Amino acid sequence: MTNPALLARMIMAGQGKAPADLVIRNIGLLDVITGKITATDIAIVADRIVGTHASYEGTSTIDGTGRFAVPGFIDTHLHIESSLVTPLEFDRCVLPHGVTTVLCDPHEIANVLGAEGIRYFLDSADRTIMDVRVNLSSCVPATPFETAGAQLEIGDLLPFRDHPKVVGLAEMMNFPGVLNADPGILAKLAAFQDGHIDGHAPLLRGTELNGYLAAGIRTDHEATSAAEAREKLAKGMAILIREGSVSKDLEALAEILDEDSSSFVALCTDDRNPLDIAEEGHLDSSIRRLIAKGRPLHHVYRAASHSAARIFGLKDRGLVAPGWRADIAILDRLEDCSVSDVICAGRLVTPELFDTRKTVAPVGLTSMKAKPVTSNAFVTEPRTGQNRVPVIGVRPGLILTFREEASLATTHQGLQPDLEADIIKVAVIERHGKNGNIGRSFVTGFGLKRGAIASSVGHDSHNITVVGATDEDMAVAVNRLIELGGGFAVADGGKVTAELALPIAGLMSLKSFEEVAHDLHHLRDAAKALGCVLPEPFLQVAFLALPVIPHLKMTDRGLFDVDKFDFVN
Amino acid sequence: MTNPALLARMIMAGQGKAPADLVIRNIGLLDVITGKITATDIAIVADRIVGTHASYEGTSTIDGTGRFAVPGFIDTHLHIESSLVTPLEFDRCVLPHGVTTVLCDPHEIANVLGAEGIRYFLDSADRTIMDVRVNLSSCVPATPFETAGAQLEIGDLLPFRDHPKVVGLAEMMNFPGVLNADPGILAKLAAFQDGHIDGHAPLLRGTELNGYLAAGIRTDHEATSAAEAREKLAKGMAILIREGSVSKDLEALAEILDEDSSSFVALCTDDRNPLDIAEEGHLDSSIRRLIAKGRPLHHVYRAASHSAARIFGLKDRGLVAPGWRADIAILDRLEDCSVSDVICAGRLVTPELFDTRKTVAPVGLTSMKAKPVTSNAFVTEPRTGQNRVPVIGVRPGLILTFREEASLATTHQGLQPDLEADIIKVAVIERHGKNGNIGRSFVTGFGLKRGAIASSVGHDSHNITVVGATDEDMAVAVNRLIELGGGFAVADGGKVTAELALPIAGLMSLKSFEEVAHDLHHLRDAAKALGCVLPEPFLQVAFLALPVIPHLKMTDRGLFDVDKFDFVN
Repeated sequence: MTNPALLARMIMAGQGKAPADLVIRNIGLLDVITGKITATDIAIVADRIVGTHASYEGTSTIDGTGRFAVPGFIDTHLHIESSLVTPLEFDRCVLPHGVTTVLCDPHEIANVLGAEGIRYFLDSADRTIMDVRVNLSSCVPATPFETAGAQLEIGDLLPFRDHPKVVGLAEMMNFPGVLNADPGILAKLAAFQDGHIDGHAPLLRGTELNGYLAAGIRTDHEATSAAEAREKLAKGMAILIREGSVSKDLEALAEILDEDSSSFVALCTDDRNPLDIAEEGHLDSSIRRLIAKGRPLHHVYRAASHSAARIFGLKDRGLVAPGWRADIAILDRLEDCSVSDVICAGRLVTPELFDTRKTVAPVGLTSMKAKPVTSNAFVTEPRTGQNRVPVIGVRPGLILTFREEASLATTHQGLQPDLEADIIKVAVIERHGKNGNIGRSFVTGFGLKRGAIASSVGHDSHNITVVGATDEDMAVAVNRLIELGGGFAVADGGKVTAELALPIAGLMSLKSFEEVAHDLHHLRDAAKALGCVLPEPFLQVAFLALPVIPHLKMTDRGLFDVDKFDFVN
Repeated sequence: MTNPALLARMIMAGQGKAPADLVIRNIGLLDVITGKITATDIAIVADRIVGTHASYEGTSTIDGTGRFAVPGFIDTHLHIESSLVTPLEFDRCVLPHGVTTVLCDPHEIANVLGAEGIRYFLDSADRTIMDVRVNLSSCVPATPFETAGAQLEIGDLLPFRDHPKVVGLAEMMNFPGVLNADPGILAKLAAFQDGHIDGHAPLLRGTELNGYLAAGIRTDHEATSAAEAREKLAKGMAILIREGSVSKDLEALAEILDEDSSSFVALCTDDRNPLDIAEEGHLDSSIRRLIAKGRPLHHVYRAASHSAARIFGLKDRGLVAPGWRADIAILDRLEDCSVSDVICAGRLVTPELFDTRKTVAPVGLTSMKAKPVTSNAFVTEPRTGQNRVPVIGVRPGLILTFREEASLATTHQGLQPDLEADIIKVAVIERHGKNGNIGRSFVTGFGLKRGAIASSVGHDSHNITVVGATDEDMAVAVNRLIELGGGFAVADGGKVTAELALPIAGLMSLKSFEEVAHDLHHLRDAAKALGCVLPEPFLQVAFLALPVIPHLKMTDRGLFDVDKFDFVN
């Protein structure tokens, strides 16, 4: 990697016997080991820090006076797809927040495109300014209860195992499969014993947690209480404190981060949408809040950088010190993590820097394989002799749903919504060209008085999920989605009133993150105009089809009772 | 490595659904993250811990009642040759002290045998019970000022780079070569940028330290003051606190080990002889003393285990937790680190366990290539017109020497020792069959009134070093050494009075460590009988020829002034 001539230049520049490429002058360097702040220059050659705690001359310089340097932040677990933009656009959006490395799991695109989706992420990772590392999606499809676009067995993953951007096996979310020693799961676990295996074990405790850990799984981002996180830490599991757009665990877990634990704790976002990134920030937001909650400042910055690097075996980064990768966040203030400049692999991050990147051809542009529908597709016949029907109950900000019931009127067009009782239709349409399934049922909590909302983002199989007050508008929204190659659509009175195309596998836009944020605002307003009472209607539609989250979910194969782990007959 | 069927057994045993192979019952488990002690069973399957914080059934059990479990200790830097026994015998000697992993640098044998010596260590590492990992000797020969048996360039090291027991490049002691960007050194550094490069940088500070670190060097075991160690830590260098038989830094460095630093600090012994191991212990002795000095207990145990593993990228070990390698020290008391049982890779360490190991054929049995000498070999002619001669001054327990002077009488047999003034002869005889060099001079501080002491252990080139009151006894001691194939010998009145054969490369015995310890006692007594006043005469003879340690040293090429970095003309 580093050739001898470059190494010689680094050694000479470190001694001050040759100019550095870049010098940050007179900055307050935070030592994430001791917490001490030292005023110093920081000298950089190529992608490496070569000197600290001294004065240096450089070909170019940045004035650090009055500012602070900390190691670049590492997001230890996220799905870039959740930002709704391409990896290159994510790079441009998130790197200025000081996030110089991310460990992503292309789980969403892999569920649509399989290995082609992973390859797209690896190709993108070769071009981003930030260092995008990839954990290989371990659970595609995530469940057998819906129709996914692809299936990844160990033989599909092995060709990627030794790619330089690949860290290991991504979140092993099929914990029942682990605990039952499912042969397909065992094959994947066995192949990555010498690498890294990411965990995902919500609420797993006691000897079940032991069994899961005995498989060599090392991290968890699903702890939601301090007690759960403390048990996991005591059992050697690194805790990745998650603060996403949907799942927010920082409030509950902040207390576990202290002097003793900080080398075993890191931060992640998992799923964060572009509106939240624009309004609150990314990992910088988590750091700010942890400090505000009284966690020891240098231990928070350590968790966000060096601890993350160590936990995932990234040996070259995580400290601002000679010989380490020059990933540096420059802050106006340490306390509120106000990032004013970012150095990534030795380069000052500027708008122009992003223009130097080679592009990556989009993939999955024809992934939306569902056929156009008519309103008849949503006719829902009552089950014989049943007057009352099960209804999915939705609450604002929860991906958890509840099982409710209602008595609905029946016409020659089947069971009818009850708008006064806020009971509307929900349908999931298989869109991978596999079987054309349509699952239909009812949902309450959206508040729609008319129109329909449709999404091709539908965790984890990403079929089309649509909710609506009328069959006609449901058909309009769905057919527009199919035309767009995927995305979000709002229909009202037979017309589309707002939309966002997500033509890359039905998950990601070809637009800039600024345009996507703008369109999302417009979509929210359009949903509100239908009467929608949920602040994040699209996120909630996107999780209606996830049959591993309690209690009642809708898939293309039918209504699924997660508690019984079976379909509602 | 771990096959799916075994993995399934681990998962089931972790859940308590199948018996474990081994259960430690009712032990106090120390959490090195939080310091908490929990009474629990520890379940093990094959080489892995599968359950803690629960009750388990196992095929075999150990009663842990009243005892404590901590992660097995990791010696992060040592030369096994300094124990004077083979790696397999070292294993038998040191593993019962709780040291389950060592990172050794076969620097001594490599200076005699080159790549053959490294291969011998790797072959031995395949057979030991403890996990012996090897860093590849970076500086062979250590200096150009003496004649070594071998030279290792990057081309000689590369064939070993990917051996499963190899961690990286061993201590880069040629720091002037690094700072001057010497091409041979650069080639070695460049080849290990993606791996690990061990440091060795005594007293290096400021921008020189920065230049050294810019080369990607990550660790240091040569800091001798807290201030030096703190600067190195602030510059991202992991500090390995060394406590050997000769170099003892624990007293000075203990204060740097605290809650903030413990993930960046580890322990090592570097060079420790079998008498010290028998009398004081190994890393257990360092741990005991650090705790006695008031360092926080669980952070001391963390540094000795998990921190060491992380610093060197050994991802599978360092915690007593499900999914981690079953390397466990079982202690009677935590405070004084009294090891009563050791589990290594899941196996209880017993005398019988060592009997199961396959042997390794010794190497270097004909490495002692010097020809027998007569007393005339030690005749030292005065330099023309010089009455006064330089004399090497030796002090007890220091490998540092001092430059002194004396006026000596001259006969037809050259310059004469002055026994009243404690000035005796010293000679270094090249023994690798290269050139037959003999360097001669004088030394003070041994106190010998008669006889001679000879050693084929002579850092770092391991020529024959002999000190003596008479030329005749010097010849007797040297010739016996040559007959023995290397070792230590004491001669008195024309006869050998004590000896220890070290026929493996002139460095290691074929005997048991108990026999070696016994013979060393006998050698000490024999030296004392000559009048020797140094408590460790053989260690001090062994460091007389090391021309990188100030101030005046003796090599086969002549008397060397380390301060001037040149020979005394």
